[in-house]
Amino acid sequence: MKLVRYGPKGAEKPGLIDEAGVLRDLSAHVSDIDCDTCTNAQLDRLAALEPAALPQVAGSPRLGSPIKRPGHFIAIGLNFRDHAAEAGQPIPSEPVVFSKAPSSINGPHDDVVIPKGCTKLDWEVELAFVVSQRAWQISEADAFAHIAGYLICNDVSERTWQFGGSGQWTKGKSGPTFGPLGPYLVTTDEIPDPQNLDIFLDVNGTRRQTGNTSTMIFPIAEIIAYLSGIMVLEPGDVVTTGTPPGVGMGMNPPVFLQPGDVMTLGISGLGEQRQKVVAA
Amino acid sequence: MKLVRYGPKGAEKPGLIDEAGVLRDLSAHVSDIDCDTCTNAQLDRLAALEPAALPQVAGSPRLGSPIKRPGHFIAIGLNFRDHAAEAGQPIPSEPVVFSKAPSSINGPHDDVVIPKGCTKLDWEVELAFVVSQRAWQISEADAFAHIAGYLICNDVSERTWQFGGSGQWTKGKSGPTFGPLGPYLVTTDEIPDPQNLDIFLDVNGTRRQTGNTSTMIFPIAEIIAYLSGIMVLEPGDVVTTGTPPGVGMGMNPPVFLQPGDVMTLGISGLGEQRQKVVAA
Repeated sequence: MKLVRYGPKGAEKPGLIDEAGVLRDLSAHVSDIDCDTCTNAQLDRLAALEPAALPQVAGSPRLGSPIKRPGHFIAIGLNFRDHAAEAGQPIPSEPVVFSKAPSSINGPHDDVVIPKGCTKLDWEVELAFVVSQRAWQISEADAFAHIAGYLICNDVSERTWQFGGSGQWTKGKSGPTFGPLGPYLVTTDEIPDPQNLDIFLDVNGTRRQTGNTSTMIFPIAEIIAYLSGIMVLEPGDVVTTGTPPGVGMGMNPPVFLQPGDVMTLGISGLGEQRQKVVAA
Repeated sequence: MKLVRYGPKGAEKPGLIDEAGVLRDLSAHVSDIDCDTCTNAQLDRLAALEPAALPQVAGSPRLGSPIKRPGHFIAIGLNFRDHAAEAGQPIPSEPVVFSKAPSSINGPHDDVVIPKGCTKLDWEVELAFVVSQRAWQISEADAFAHIAGYLICNDVSERTWQFGGSGQWTKGKSGPTFGPLGPYLVTTDEIPDPQNLDIFLDVNGTRRQTGNTSTMIFPIAEIIAYLSGIMVLEPGDVVTTGTPPGVGMGMNPPVFLQPGDVMTLGISGLGEQRQKVVAA
């Protein structure tokens, strides 16, 4: 299934995109796509529906984040060797874990807003996943049973805020609109090998990031095993798994996002995002 | 008001403690004390109730965290000069911001569990507050209108996990039971000056931490103004504001929590917590 949330910001309804690409309404079957409805049991119930029997949605409404609000928005840093190098950071010996504010989430095609005082806004296309059941001290072998599905995350980052001051990265990762998610939450049955997905990001039509999830330092199963050894993961937690090389701060000279810039980013099987950058 | 959540873990009901110290049931007036019900409007509605007219709760049920689940569990590090020194860290020039996993929250008197692989578990008594309305780019003058109330947080910390490896502190702050909150969420009307509250923490009856919120490097109004400049705060977010000196890692030699240890901690007007430390 390709689950979506459609409609005006703050008033999204649950839906799915059927095999013909038609948007259909799920409101009669689930109140929203949120922490309570991302469980394995709820997803099984939705998967048993006949898409052709669901009401078609007229027009082309805006898409919101395909999950209403992450319970915990977790990010893995420096998970591609070449990206760690361009960031001037050592290759990590264990996953680098930080949080993004849940209030940073945004629709996949909504504008990304440069907040006051922000001078080094950067892009990071990433594969993210949604947790589907409580996970504590889970083995790598059991990891995939804890995933509801996959989605694209643009881990928008303010580099001065991330690396300056305190050294804690949450600061540079949490601005409003810094977490575009979607367009779809694609359930695991449609992504048989999440460790072999092509990733790209363009700025103003120029390719900036190219990668494949096969080159992650810590693949998804290892991330889940690791995270679940230090914190309880819960249904509706979103984990974004790190970005391949090609971010703006790694360019010579560094390039940062300016009002009017357009980011286009995608991952095989998960669709594409498109965001215009605007001043506050 | 002193708001509480009482009953077995995962099945808590909302309640309040009246002026005579009697626990009364709020179930008829609010479904739970959570992100949706920590808003100024909802709190005003509860404040208008006559406590004596609410049903008394029989016995002495367990108390849970007085908020069901933080939307974002934000922590400020090194906010007392002497604590920064004992932690071997520089005095910060701006607030140090990191997140704790929302799944770390725990009742105020529940056991704190030492997870597998944890060798340096430490205590940190802190004043926390709950956000009551959306805050973005708020001035210090407007800060207090965004607070639902105050509560005690024990920011339980695993020091190897916090400072080792990646340098991102979320890792050492997020284990299950690492976030005891409560016993009460005390609304702002009962705490006229949150910057003059005595703080203490004992381990096995020996005083380890003594402080007063008057000596914070960044007081609450400044924390809210700062945070709201880098992320949107939302109703139900919990912000814990940093610990005074006297943590275990600052002792000579350092002392860490062991199975059987008992922590007792309190803040003027906010009650006390008591936790036994147990092995996993």
